[in-house]
Order: sequence, then structure tokens, then C-alpha cells
Amino acid sequence: MSEKPIGITVKKKENFSEWFTQVLIKADLIDQRYNVQGFIVHKPWAMRIIKQIYKLFEEELEKTGHEPVLFPLVIPEENFEKEKEHVEGFKPEVFWVTEAGEEKLERRLALRPTSETAFYQMYSLWINSWRDLPLKLYQSVSVYRYEKNTRPFIRGREFLWIEAHNAFKNHDEVLKQIREDMENTTKIVWEQLAIPFLFLRRPKWDKFAGAVDTYAADTLMPDGRVLQISSTHDLGQNFSKAFEVTYVDKEGERHYVWQTCYGPGIWRIVAALISIHGDDKGLVLPFSVAPIQVIIIPIYYDESEKQVVMKKCEEIYEFLRKKKIRVKIDTREKTPGWKFNDWELKGVPIRIEIGKKEVQQGYITIYRRDLRKRQKVDADLEKIYSFIIKLAEDMLETLKKKSKEYFESHIVFAKNKNEIMDALKRRCLIKMPFCGEEGCAMDMKEKTDGLKVRGTSIDGEDKVENLKCAWCNKPAKKIVYVAKAY
Amino acid sequence: MSEKPIGITVKKKENFSEWFTQVLIKADLIDQRYNVQGFIVHKPWAMRIIKQIYKLFEEELEKTGHEPVLFPLVIPEENFEKEKEHVEGFKPEVFWVTEAGEEKLERRLALRPTSETAFYQMYSLWINSWRDLPLKLYQSVSVYRYEKNTRPFIRGREFLWIEAHNAFKNHDEVLKQIREDMENTTKIVWEQLAIPFLFLRRPKWDKFAGAVDTYAADTLMPDGRVLQISSTHDLGQNFSKAFEVTYVDKEGERHYVWQTCYGPGIWRIVAALISIHGDDKGLVLPFSVAPIQVIIIPIYYDESEKQVVMKKCEEIYEFLRKKKIRVKIDTREKTPGWKFNDWELKGVPIRIEIGKKEVQQGYITIYRRDLRKRQKVDADLEKIYSFIIKLAEDMLETLKKKSKEYFESHIVFAKNKNEIMDALKRRCLIKMPFCGEEGCAMDMKEKTDGLKVRGTSIDGEDKVENLKCAWCNKPAKKIVYVAKAY
Repeated sequence: MSEKPIGITVKKKENFSEWFTQVLIKADLIDQRYNVQGFIVHKPWAMRIIKQIYKLFEEELEKTGHEPVLFPLVIPEENFEKEKEHVEGFKPEVFWVTEAGEEKLERRLALRPTSETAFYQMYSLWINSWRDLPLKLYQSVSVYRYEKNTRPFIRGREFLWIEAHNAFKNHDEVLKQIREDMENTTKIVWEQLAIPFLFLRRPKWDKFAGAVDTYAADTLMPDGRVLQISSTHDLGQNFSKAFEVTYVDKEGERHYVWQTCYGPGIWRIVAALISIHGDDKGLVLPFSVAPIQVIIIPIYYDESEKQVVMKKCEEIYEFLRKKKIRVKIDTREKTPGWKFNDWELKGVPIRIEIGKKEVQQGYITIYRRDLRKRQKVDADLEKIYSFIIKLAEDMLETLKKKSKEYFESHIVFAKNKNEIMDALKRRCLIKMPFCGEEGCAMDMKEKTDGLKVRGTSIDGEDKVENLKCAWCNKPAKKIVYVAKAY
Repeated sequence: MSEKPIGITVKKKENFSEWFTQVLIKADLIDQRYNVQGFIVHKPWAMRIIKQIYKLFEEELEKTGHEPVLFPLVIPEENFEKEKEHVEGFKPEVFWVTEAGEEKLERRLALRPTSETAFYQMYSLWINSWRDLPLKLYQSVSVYRYEKNTRPFIRGREFLWIEAHNAFKNHDEVLKQIREDMENTTKIVWEQLAIPFLFLRRPKWDKFAGAVDTYAADTLMPDGRVLQISSTHDLGQNFSKAFEVTYVDKEGERHYVWQTCYGPGIWRIVAALISIHGDDKGLVLPFSVAPIQVIIIPIYYDESEKQVVMKKCEEIYEFLRKKKIRVKIDTREKTPGWKFNDWELKGVPIRIEIGKKEVQQGYITIYRRDLRKRQKVDADLEKIYSFIIKLAEDMLETLKKKSKEYFESHIVFAKNKNEIMDALKRRCLIKMPFCGEEGCAMDMKEKTDGLKVRGTSIDGEDKVENLKCAWCNKPAKKIVYVAKAY
């Protein structure tokens, strides 16, 4: 609470990594000083943003027929062993509970790294007839993975997500569900949070452990690395065979069900929100998920001014609060300038400034965080309200326009190694012809210190006739997206 | 999905334990067949009730100045060691994570059984000046305890609650906070969920481990046992001394903070909700937390009837949905009678029945779950809506009246052992004069197979002049409440 300078001391463009760390601390989102490595404390400002994002996803999932459940945190080791690829993929990352009270447990219990092997044993009990399908359930939980390198909101030993686990009669329904998952992601992540991304079909060597196909949304971070913020998996019948999840069709025949699982990475969406919209003054939050949407700053220099100003502040506060705006008056004993900086750091979309002059002349000053611009507005309550609603829409459009322009201008086509290396320098997501060989992908990764084939576009294959692989120069089989990744 | 009888086959009054188990399964609340003992699967109907209850508490907590946080699931063993009573109380119940991937961890990590020892080490970092106080934070999480005997919603190895952890400048503020916690509990558990309870100050041998004083809400279950559904603890300076949580006052002097923690037991509130309001037909849910508040059942016998009836159902559905009522049309291929039973089992407060006759004569039939009564209502949309809103209020009042009558008539005053034993038989909560000695309480517990001193009333001490302890006949020092407990 001291009066030390509270702003961010590096530029996002010049040192993104340090900028990100400073925003986490200075916008009071998290505390990394908890005494277990890779586990962080989520402070109120982060939790309130996270709760808003959960709400958006849960509403959308329920609209599309999903229902909430809660499965146990712990999964017996034997469950993991049932799907071969899955256990190979996840076992190195699992935390194990082995003792309780004074006793050693008879078998190890995993902290859920993901919950396929918890859900699907129950699906085998719950699903019997075609009437029980589709089954569409989700849970909003933390998951646990023993990651070596952790970064808040990007990679953690404990992180927040939603996992939806669906079962269907056939593979067509699986493909439809994957479309739906992608549309739900778009409706929230793009349309409401203004985060642009590409949904890509991952190469076979980079699938979810146990899946037939993985489709994942990559956004582009300011340092040129992509961040997977959501993924949905065509599990085929891999898990239904491992867990004996079957149904009897109308003709009385028994079949294994077809499955999908979908995981919006709530944590990573927060990371993208911070990184893509933030600026050198701090966070820039979309109106829809801002814990405080409108902050009112009273400005006065003596007690008589204070009374006049506070009266007007409270009048506006009460009116907006009744209109369901998340609004607050900042009454702390700090200078207006300090408060301006503090709420800019925290990304509050709209600030109302009210001083003696405003009250006397019948207007208020409204400041929009995204463009950092002030505007005078007539101090009529209804007018203030409609101004705010219109401004909120305009701010979302402005965020979208800006983030889309950046995203699209940073996807470049590369025909050869030189162009790849050049695009890398310019922090771009690379689109290139590719031979399709895992060996070539691994060679590229090694020689570029991490450049990875992220996958192919979902909507129609790009033409590759007469093109050569931009890395190995052999005939190209597909167009792929390539980037370094978090 | 077979047409087997779906109702409950025992009477709540005659065999409460079996009735409770049947409701859990037949109302489709949970599944106990998950393959780790003491861990259950929460199915959609339970999760949707639970989410509503969480919402009520979170709103109330935020109104009274608490903010949401999320602390790590795991707590290092060394944190527990810091408060002597706390570690003695909780260590026998802790699940330990000891391995991760292929590695053995350097030290054991506890799954949080409660989070004092996670929160307060951070409080020592966050609190420095009187300006940082009060600090009022809460988290909505699962906690983990290695319980021997488990029962869904009553005692589990994984259970859902909220924990609020507050820090203050002095003990007066602590006592005010405890009042606020009790009021918040009342506002929700009594006023909105119609569950009666008594807040009692626990005897010193039954405090929360590490607390100076424990105040807890006991409700009375139909079998005569009490259930603690919420508790708030005066921690004094016990933890602030253990974790070095100090502040500097306006005069520049440093002090240890004074603390409280408050734990509304979401799981147990669900147990009380089921048990107190439920009847031989199943659950009876208060309108405020029912996942479906109004279920519409179309009744038709051929395709032409179906069209007419469904049109009316959809009209009403759309209207109510826009009014933010949680409403659903049951279009399953089942008989109306089967659907009636199913939604009664699930406790849906209001059922609308619409058949050909209703459509032709311009009315609908409304059925209220609590009194199991039908009523005709004019099929005008606005009229239906106001009828439902009024009915919802009336149902809440009816539930309150009924539960309060039962509760109050089952608190009896006992002057001696005979009266105690008699009250026990009548499934009552016993009020009695007590000598105040732990030894006497233990003797009573042993000889009655579990009768426990639950504590004293909060609001003023009852007079004990000239009274003798109802158990040992020595001079009484206080009036206590006594019951067997879950």
C-alpha cells in the first residue's frame, strides 16, 4: 500500500516475457510465492475474471445439451492401464496419492491429469440402450500434471479447465460434435473475448494420448509463439473398447459407442486475454468478463467539494448497479492519478471521473481503457447508461479489429528455409507446404530450436500441386501451420 | 430406461436410512459405484442443485465484503506442523501425495483437509499495515479427509464446501464477523432453503482444532440425530502467532492479527435439504435451488391431439423461459403417469399438465409438489407467470412452517436421565441443565451410545439457578443442547 510507482516498467513489444510477469503481479492476479513449486495462489482479480469465463462456457455447453457433473479427484492406477496410448502419454506427469493418515494405501491413486479413465468406467454402467445416447457431460475442475517448467496461466502443475465427455451412436455424430465444440469455442473466445485463433487438425504424432484425431485452437502470442487454448478429440472407439462402453441399437444389436472429449483451457484463455489485449499500461479486459466494468473516481480537494462530488458518484453508482453493471466507487485515500494508474493496470474497461467542475456543469468524463481516450457525457442517468452499453460494444469491436489485424498480418506463407527463418524472426505463424513426414518435422524442430508442425486447416485442404516441402524440398502433400509453441 | 417401478419403497418415518439411500439413487443425484471408497460421482441433478446453493452463498459472501480466491490443493507437511492443536486434529485424516511421475517427492504434500495452513502463510506476506485489514477471502472447493465411515453428502473423503478466512485488527471485529457468518447462514439456509437450525457454541473439548471458540449450526435429521451444516471459528491469535501474521497500527506498533474462519458445508446442506423436506414420493426442492422449477407435461393420445397440446406447451415454455424461470417440457416417450412420478422423485416444485381438454377449455392444471395438490389456472400467459411466482413464495412459506413446527416440537427439555432417554426415543434434540464437566459429558456419551453435548445457546445464557445436571445430578452451570450426531 506504499506510494511506490505501480506501473509496468518494460514494453510489451520489447520484452514480452518480463511484461507478462509484471502484469501478473502488478494487476494483482496471482501470487507465486506459495511454497510448492508450480502451484500458485489465484487472487480475487484473477478469480473474478476466471468465474466470468467459466460462466460463459458453462452456459454455452448447457445450451448445446451438456449437463454438469463432478467426478472424483482421484483415479486408481488400474484405470489408467486400460488404454495403452493414454497411460503412456500421461503416466510420466501424474501425481500419486499413496498414504492416508498413518496408513499406506493398497494401491496408488492419481490426481486427475484429465478424466477419461474416471468418466468412462461409469459410462459403461450408465449407457445400455440407444435411448441413453447421446450422453453429453462436463465438469469444471482443476487438473494436475507434474510439469517440469511452469508459468502461470500457461503451464502449471495445477490448472483450471473444463472437460466435456460425450458418447454417440456413430462417427458422424462425433464429427458433428467436433464442429459444435469448435463453434462454442468461437462464440466465446473470439466473439466475446476477441481472441483470434485457428482450429487445426494436429499431425498424428501430436495427438492427445488415446485419440484418433485431435483438433486444437492455437492463438498467437506477442512473442511469436502459439498457445493452445482449447482442444477437442475424436476418440473413436479407443476408450469405449478399453472400458466396455456399449449400447444396444433399435434392432437389438450391441455396439461400442463413439466418443469425443473437449477441453476449453480456462487458464490459457486467461493467458491469451492478458497477452493479446494488454498494453504497456497493463491489462485491457473485455467488458463481458471484467470483474469491475465501470470504476467511478471522485475528484475533490476539500470537504465541501467531497460532499457534492460523492453525492453525484453515488447517484450514478446506484443507477448503474440496478442496471446490473459491475460498478464501484474508488474511495481509497489515494490521489486520483494513483487510482487512474491502478485501474488501468487492472484493465477496467470504463472509468468515470467526477469532480466539482463536472457536477457544476452537468456532465461527467468517461475514459475508455482500450484507446485511452476521454470523452464528456451529459450527466443524465439514462444517457450515461446507454453511452456505457454502446461503448462496451464499440470496445469489443475495437479489440476484435486490432487483434484480428495483428493475427492475420502475422500469418505468413513460407516456401523455403530462408522464408521460414525470416518469418520466425518477425514473430509470425508460418503456413507452408509440407511433405507430411514425421522425420522431416522432427528435423525442422531440432534445427530451429523448437519449430513445430501444428497441423492442417480444418476447412478444406489447401492445394499443394507442384509445391515442394518448404523444409526438405520433397513433393508437398499438404499445407501445414508451423510455429514455436508454449 | 426400463419401465420398472421407479418409486421409493420405504417410508421416511419408518426407515430413514434406507429412504435416504433410495432418494440418492432414484432421484439420480449420485452414483456410489466409483471404484475408490468414499469418493462419489455427482450426477447432473445434484450438481445443478449444488451450483445454485454455491451461488446463494457466494453472492451473500461478496455482499458482506468477501472476495473469491483459489489456493492450491496441496499443502506441504511443514505448514501443518506450525499450529500444534491443528496438526494433532487433522493429521490422522490427511491424504498424502508422495510421488510424481517416476519420482519420489522430497516432502509429502497434503490434499487440503481445510486450508488454514495454506492461507495464513500468504496472509503473513499480504498483511502489513492496518490499511490491509480487514482481509476477507473465500474459496469454493472440495476438501479431502480420510474418513472411516462415509455417507454421501454427510461424510465423505471428498466433500464440497466454502471456506472463508478473515483477518482483523481486534477481537471485537472477530465477534462481529461471527455474527455476520451466523446471519449469512440464516439468510440462506433458513430463509431461502427453509432448513431450521440452532447455532451453538461448542464445548471446549469439541472445538475446531486450533480454534479458541467454535460456533456451529446443527439441524435435526428425521432419525433424531443432528447434522452440523455450517461452522464459524474464533481463531483468536493462535494461527497469526504460528504463521507470523502481523500488522502495524496507526501509531506504528506491530500486532498479531485476529482471525476467523467460516465453513458453510455445501454437501451437508444438500443432505439436510433432501432429508428435511423430502417425503415418501422423493425429493421436495425449494423453488430457489431447483434445477428445473417448472416441468411441463404434455398429455395426448393421438397425433392430432399431440400437435394442439404441444403448441400450447411450447407457448408457455417460451414465455416462462424469457421470464428466467428454469422450465422444461418433458417430451420423453413415456406415459404421463411415469413422468409425474419421475419429476416428483426429483422434487421439481411445480408441474404443469396440459391435455386436449385443457387447451379446449382455456386452462392449465398446476400441481404443487410440496402439498401434492392440483389446481386449475386460467391459460393466460401473464396469469400463469404470476400464479407461479406467488406459488413459489407460498411453497417456501409452507416448507418453512412445516420444518419449523417439526424442529421446535422436537426440542425437549430433560431434567434427568429418564427424561433424556425418553427424548432420545422420540428422536428429539435435548435441552438440559449440565454441570459443565467434560468427564460427565464423556460418561453420558458412553452410556447412551453416542449422546453428545453440542453446546450452549449463543443468544444469552439460560438461567440455571437451582438446577441440577440432568446426567450427573451435580449443580448445573449451564443449559446445553445434547444429541446424537452424524
